[in-house]
Amino acid sequence: MHEIGALVRDGLVAQGMESRSRGGRPSRVVELSDTVQFLAIDVGTVSISAGTTNAYLEVLETVEEPTDLKAGPASVMAQIEECARRLTGDARGPLRVAGVGIGIPSPVSVELGEPVDPALMPGWDRFPIRDQLSERLGVPVSVDKDANLMVLGEGHRGAAQGIEDCLFVKLGSGISCGIVVGGSLYRGHSGAAGDIGHVPAGNSDVPCHCGRRGCVEAQVGAAALGARALAAARSGESPFLAERLASTGTLVGMDLALANAAGDPAAARIIRETGALIGEALSALVNFFNPERIVLGGPSAAFGPPLLTEVHSAILKRSSSLSTAGLVVMSSTLGKTSGLIGAARLASDTFLTSLSRSH
Amino acid sequence: MHEIGALVRDGLVAQGMESRSRGGRPSRVVELSDTVQFLAIDVGTVSISAGTTNAYLEVLETVEEPTDLKAGPASVMAQIEECARRLTGDARGPLRVAGVGIGIPSPVSVELGEPVDPALMPGWDRFPIRDQLSERLGVPVSVDKDANLMVLGEGHRGAAQGIEDCLFVKLGSGISCGIVVGGSLYRGHSGAAGDIGHVPAGNSDVPCHCGRRGCVEAQVGAAALGARALAAARSGESPFLAERLASTGTLVGMDLALANAAGDPAAARIIRETGALIGEALSALVNFFNPERIVLGGPSAAFGPPLLTEVHSAILKRSSSLSTAGLVVMSSTLGKTSGLIGAARLASDTFLTSLSRSH
Repeated sequence: MHEIGALVRDGLVAQGMESRSRGGRPSRVVELSDTVQFLAIDVGTVSISAGTTNAYLEVLETVEEPTDLKAGPASVMAQIEECARRLTGDARGPLRVAGVGIGIPSPVSVELGEPVDPALMPGWDRFPIRDQLSERLGVPVSVDKDANLMVLGEGHRGAAQGIEDCLFVKLGSGISCGIVVGGSLYRGHSGAAGDIGHVPAGNSDVPCHCGRRGCVEAQVGAAALGARALAAARSGESPFLAERLASTGTLVGMDLALANAAGDPAAARIIRETGALIGEALSALVNFFNPERIVLGGPSAAFGPPLLTEVHSAILKRSSSLSTAGLVVMSSTLGKTSGLIGAARLASDTFLTSLSRSH
Repeated sequence: MHEIGALVRDGLVAQGMESRSRGGRPSRVVELSDTVQFLAIDVGTVSISAGTTNAYLEVLETVEEPTDLKAGPASVMAQIEECARRLTGDARGPLRVAGVGIGIPSPVSVELGEPVDPALMPGWDRFPIRDQLSERLGVPVSVDKDANLMVLGEGHRGAAQGIEDCLFVKLGSGISCGIVVGGSLYRGHSGAAGDIGHVPAGNSDVPCHCGRRGCVEAQVGAAALGARALAAARSGESPFLAERLASTGTLVGMDLALANAAGDPAAARIIRETGALIGEALSALVNFFNPERIVLGGPSAAFGPPLLTEVHSAILKRSSSLSTAGLVVMSSTLGKTSGLIGAARLASDTFLTSLSRSH
């Protein structure tokens, strides 16, 4: 996509020098100019985050906006373009960035750059996100599943850095997973790897949006947690949540974190039960994959130590002693930024690959 | 372990020549002499198979003996040594082979060469198989889980050859799995990867020897299949099995294959149900790992096409469309030999690694 001669001419790339270590995958010895920027976009079910980074994937500027992913591609794609142009200051024409990386909460055909069977993105199935956005923005765009980008980000300079075999578990509207094998992102044969939301755990009667019952996502996804918070408020079990419901008119899963921080016992119990269910779901994967480390990220990871402890405890109870002996379970260290840094890393890897191909 | 000068002197290795392609991992350009042999041992719960191979891992001679793994290390280790010496013709002293590979039905600490928490091998926990056998036989010994060696064998010249991301599922006394990622065996952080016997599937009330309930191994392991065959015989549901029980006095899981081949409808149903349970257990792993191919091996893979079809059908029903679009489910092509060829491959890889280290 990039012709290296043109990049050298434009001052974006200097040839033949030792590259400054940037954790990327330098396909040839190039020095990315400090003027090279990447644009990272993290699309969630209810918000869009975007940020620019320099060549070393340090975040320069960010924007965040509420969105409604369920509204479908037409309005959301326009909103993504608008965020991108606002951030880069390019009101029209091609963006002056070397590439765009974008994460979405869906399985992605990386080859085609589009979501496949996206349970949380109705109306988006097989929508050509990469190609349409690349045409609108005039630069190369790469698309991947959000959990994959989060583990790329954590691997770049977070909780997965230097870890050979790692699972990153994203706890949000959906429950999904990014997998690192031998230090590299593992996407599976068709890019579908890490789809763990429908592992059975807990109550086998709970119906899931996938049509089956007992899936972990149906019990600890954001919607299920919101419903549990609401039930605890309405039953009078949690005075804290009842008061919050009365004052705000609604409750979401993250209100459990506030309630727990305020010492609410009902919220503490729900968080512990959530951890136990997640650990139960992960235990079969620990036996199968025997990771060195499990990193919990996404919004519900904000439940913190009690969640972490129950996840780990449930795994220790159910997985083999050999697979758990050296296992570390910890929270994301980059928090909300992991998806942005991972998206920038994807854009940067794509850029470096295109350099090596063009030369 | 081997000093290359001594090997050259003994005529086992010629240096500096192009190595004839043998599918191994040539750490340096060496030509293994045709006089180099490896000894492969496949230890099952009720039998020991052993075989010698040449440098190209072609099997030369084999022996097979009944054993009782539950009798513990003392008698079985002596029996293994006896098999090894009978095969190689070395009645005493060090064996004249370049290395020994041995597979056992247990998680293995590859680093220490010993079984860890071996459910099917009571009395063997942490028994130093590698070190004791290496001392007795006078040559380097490598130990691994049987399913790992089977997928190494199938990858060398069977159903997993050339497949990047592959699961080999061993159906025998236990249900376990060998994993190939990017064309190489994946053992996980501590060598425990592929332990899939305790994935939940089917009836969540069935007690398992691990202490939990509803594990797939408790329902489709050899003991469970034997019990189902017996029940079908005694209830009169299967005249074929009733007759066989009357004539032989006992029934094992593999009698279902005979009954099915004879057109027995009860056996056919049990085999179909077995396939559906295995597929259910694998479906979560297909979502997680997104393999290109699943190879079924081990004794119960002999149930053949009806088993295969039901496994595949259950996976298609439960796994994501992206993960199953290109998925192939097939039987082992090496059959009983896969474990031996894999054990020889392990011995050969260890040998080549020791060559590169010694030089």
